[in-house]
Amino acid sequence: MKLARYGAPGAEKPALVDAQGHLRDLSAYVPDIAGEVLTDLSALASLDPETLPLIDGNPRLGPCVGQTGKFICIGLNYADHAAESGLDVPPEPVIFAKYTSAICGPNDPIIIPRGSEKTDWEVELGFVIGKKAKYVAEVDAMAHVAGFCLINDVSERAYQIERSGQWSKGKSSDNFGPTGPWLVTPDEVGDFDDLHMWLDVNGERVQDGSTATMVYKVPFLLSYLSQFFTLHPGDIISTGTPPGVGLGFKPPRYLKAGDVVDLGIEGLGTQRQTCVNDV
Amino acid sequence: MKLARYGAPGAEKPALVDAQGHLRDLSAYVPDIAGEVLTDLSALASLDPETLPLIDGNPRLGPCVGQTGKFICIGLNYADHAAESGLDVPPEPVIFAKYTSAICGPNDPIIIPRGSEKTDWEVELGFVIGKKAKYVAEVDAMAHVAGFCLINDVSERAYQIERSGQWSKGKSSDNFGPTGPWLVTPDEVGDFDDLHMWLDVNGERVQDGSTATMVYKVPFLLSYLSQFFTLHPGDIISTGTPPGVGLGFKPPRYLKAGDVVDLGIEGLGTQRQTCVNDV
Repeated sequence: MKLARYGAPGAEKPALVDAQGHLRDLSAYVPDIAGEVLTDLSALASLDPETLPLIDGNPRLGPCVGQTGKFICIGLNYADHAAESGLDVPPEPVIFAKYTSAICGPNDPIIIPRGSEKTDWEVELGFVIGKKAKYVAEVDAMAHVAGFCLINDVSERAYQIERSGQWSKGKSSDNFGPTGPWLVTPDEVGDFDDLHMWLDVNGERVQDGSTATMVYKVPFLLSYLSQFFTLHPGDIISTGTPPGVGLGFKPPRYLKAGDVVDLGIEGLGTQRQTCVNDV
Repeated sequence: MKLARYGAPGAEKPALVDAQGHLRDLSAYVPDIAGEVLTDLSALASLDPETLPLIDGNPRLGPCVGQTGKFICIGLNYADHAAESGLDVPPEPVIFAKYTSAICGPNDPIIIPRGSEKTDWEVELGFVIGKKAKYVAEVDAMAHVAGFCLINDVSERAYQIERSGQWSKGKSSDNFGPTGPWLVTPDEVGDFDDLHMWLDVNGERVQDGSTATMVYKVPFLLSYLSQFFTLHPGDIISTGTPPGVGLGFKPPRYLKAGDVVDLGIEGLGTQRQTCVNDV
């Protein structure tokens, strides 16, 4: 099952994606794709999509999950990306925060902050918590996952690395977290350890990888994080990026107004963002 | 004006603190001390507290603000605390995230995570955003502050420093963010640059400082943060801690089950936490 949210920012409605890829409104069944709704999606899975109202036109898509409390990112989780960053794979996962005010729809613009010169891209596999998780064993982890989604972990490298400590500063600007288009349930994703993922800038492929080269895998990450704090429904974990980010080019390449970023992960849909300057 | 929230976790009601220190219920006027309510508190300030329902007994106090989107902490913001940590004052503020699921009431227990051996304390001055702030000049900053509060930035030093990068990991365990008892409006706080602050462990004073020695001050911090992302009503900024944390003792001292932590800031009330092991 693929779930989505559509409409104006902050006023998104829940929807289901039918076999033809059309949005079907779920407002009669759930208030939002968020919170406790994520804990048991079986009632939605049993609906006949043909019976749901078809959404006309091409509405804006919002982030595929609402009311996210924690947006947790995993750093340096692809061996080859760590290498391009000049860093070793860490002995246990590096986690950092993207403030949730950065979350936006999959095709919303990338807003380049005033004065920014190093806004960069990162295609990532995200997973969304469905059921509260604390001290969960790796073998039980997947029972706590509502689904997977595509994320662009947009990053300002000067803010992240050169402006005094802690990466959150460079990860949290407005619209730095395009999330969606869809929340795809695990049964529909299949083998999440072998998904092709890519990112193009102005039509040129710059990231071309696979979740197969991820170092710390989804069940391990969920278990690991749950040792430190409770994971709640709607929390998003973004699992790191493969090689090909702008910082890794020699010389580095960064985004400027007018650039178009296309990205996707096999089975999870695609995103397209146009870069604009903040005014 | 002093505002508070009382009742069971997740179901707190809004209240005002009267001149005698008693809670008066505000449910007839506002749904919560949260969100847009924080943007204009003048209607609440004009109420006669004597006309509001008096709350009987001694209910649990919740965090003094609800629906917090961002909990932003400032690192190494007291020169003498930086020294005890063996670190220089940074050339610009270090910011790190405490995940909002860590927020709890001022007198809720400190929950020591399973296996933790280095749970530590930090008394801090917090300020709460009242009005949306983006690219705000320092001179205009205070118009965006709803009020001030007391925070214990509870920290697990092994998780923070020894367990692979980024501090959030050691700052975000459940109940690591006691916040309150009160949200005190700026007019009532007066000179927030000269407030006595202290923290006792089992009756022994371990932190005894003043906001006077803070390096980066509140208006500067608000302006600075607003260059990176939009600050929203209910966001909390915790401005760093003076000397005397457990990590700074030789040898270091950490909390164990049964320990009692008392802390306070002049004009902002006090907190008392008992430490318990997570089970």
